[in-house]
Amino acid sequence: MKIELAKGAGFCFGVKRAVNIALETVKQVNPPVYTIGPIIHNPQVVERLRQRGVIPIAEITDLPPGVVIIRSHGIRPDLLRQIKALGHKVVDATCPFVRRAQNYAEQLHREGFKTVIVGKKDHPEVEGLLGHCGPNAVVVYNGSDLKGLSGHRRIGVIAQTTTPFSQFQQVILRLLEKTEELRVYNTTCSSTEKRRKETANLAKRADIMIIAGGKNSANTSRLAELCRQIGTETHHIETAAELSPEWFEGKSLVGVSAGTSTPQWIIDEVINSLKTLNQKPKTRRGGSTHLWRQ
Amino acid sequence: MKIELAKGAGFCFGVKRAVNIALETVKQVNPPVYTIGPIIHNPQVVERLRQRGVIPIAEITDLPPGVVIIRSHGIRPDLLRQIKALGHKVVDATCPFVRRAQNYAEQLHREGFKTVIVGKKDHPEVEGLLGHCGPNAVVVYNGSDLKGLSGHRRIGVIAQTTTPFSQFQQVILRLLEKTEELRVYNTTCSSTEKRRKETANLAKRADIMIIAGGKNSANTSRLAELCRQIGTETHHIETAAELSPEWFEGKSLVGVSAGTSTPQWIIDEVINSLKTLNQKPKTRRGGSTHLWRQ
Repeated sequence: MKIELAKGAGFCFGVKRAVNIALETVKQVNPPVYTIGPIIHNPQVVERLRQRGVIPIAEITDLPPGVVIIRSHGIRPDLLRQIKALGHKVVDATCPFVRRAQNYAEQLHREGFKTVIVGKKDHPEVEGLLGHCGPNAVVVYNGSDLKGLSGHRRIGVIAQTTTPFSQFQQVILRLLEKTEELRVYNTTCSSTEKRRKETANLAKRADIMIIAGGKNSANTSRLAELCRQIGTETHHIETAAELSPEWFEGKSLVGVSAGTSTPQWIIDEVINSLKTLNQKPKTRRGGSTHLWRQ
Repeated sequence: MKIELAKGAGFCFGVKRAVNIALETVKQVNPPVYTIGPIIHNPQVVERLRQRGVIPIAEITDLPPGVVIIRSHGIRPDLLRQIKALGHKVVDATCPFVRRAQNYAEQLHREGFKTVIVGKKDHPEVEGLLGHCGPNAVVVYNGSDLKGLSGHRRIGVIAQTTTPFSQFQQVILRLLEKTEELRVYNTTCSSTEKRRKETANLAKRADIMIIAGGKNSANTSRLAELCRQIGTETHHIETAAELSPEWFEGKSLVGVSAGTSTPQWIIDEVINSLKTLNQKPKTRRGGSTHLWRQ
């Protein structure tokens, strides 16, 4: 059984940066420090960070005094103001690509555009973007969500950074029919797109795909969905412990990929566990020695 | 043999307006008056107008003193300035939809965008638009013309008004991959699009299509091309005199359509000639009694 890892799998630039900022922060100030919601969508990483003193808090009002890290997905500006008003020190780990999308959202709002955000309604990045848009914005997942939209002479479009480019294109095509001026800021992240392409190429050749990453990670779930659409048997797991030896019976090529929030040590554990399947009937649970090799 | 005329065939708003302006002008001032190039792309209309004193001139330098009508396609601003500087009185018959596209072209130029015009390079409307864009613009016919375009962070797009919407969409899709900010002004004319849809629907049912209009009319030629793509036998004629009785042998449904610059009297003549084919083996050449029913 051959094992192949998709190129570009794992931590993206923005996630790597946010985790590093969190690790640096707990080095420089007395832990604990806090994040509003998990800093990235990977429960294992969040747990390891918690052990080092980075504590996720659900509500601003529950924040103990101290340092607050803004997670990679960004935050609504009114919430940020509220945090500062409560006297907390803020460390901003918003992904620079998300920040760029927020800037464009503000610009569209300022210039009076009807703003369309292509993405998932309940995703924290999208909730943050909405806060930068003013009350006039709508979130659409794909072209069929646009049925109710009409009567706008100027429409502006941005995307949740991890939106697949084809989904973004589909919305743009439909919007073209609905307005006279369409201003498009392509805020989709090229590394997400590249990862999707590499994963799809691998899925076309593989007998089975293992997608590693948070079950709460939208882009990881979409990777699994993509592989299933190609018609390849696909399992979305968070850790190597979820691998079942019987999945691999009679399989020649196992493809592995991972979302933007999946750390290298989880990918390594998955690969190592798959390797042991070649030798033993039962999976050995691999333990990583490099805690923060991302 | 049944004869069916596509809805919306013939003069569009801008062409009707330009012809009316020319007719009004020769009523108000002593003819002749002049146009730079034919006022619309229909030789028969241009000939009738010539008989009333509306004379097309190829070069500005050949203009005799007097009134100059700017044709429906518009003109380059430097040429307009030159005409005025030569002391001619100008009557502007530029289609308001073309004027809108020209305004957007100027705005994109002012704001430093790389401007892409979707249309036909040698079309007078496109030549006029180019003049409003500054030196930085490019003309593309479809998505495959974009290969050389790269390295522009901000791209603006306008269309020749009679560009099919699907062709415009195709270019937008390709441009999305090439830039961070894409500003799209949908300057395609909805009446052109509606006419194309009606014509396509008819071509799907008809045994033969007759497309009436100037051979030099881009939108008329594209109507014929559209019908041929559907797989229906199609003839592009300028006048009823070109109809051949043998085309209609064994045909049950004849579809007729016409471009934006085809006057009603040419359509009427074609319909009348087709009707006589139902009665006689040879076509009668119909003569219209309403010279300017458009």
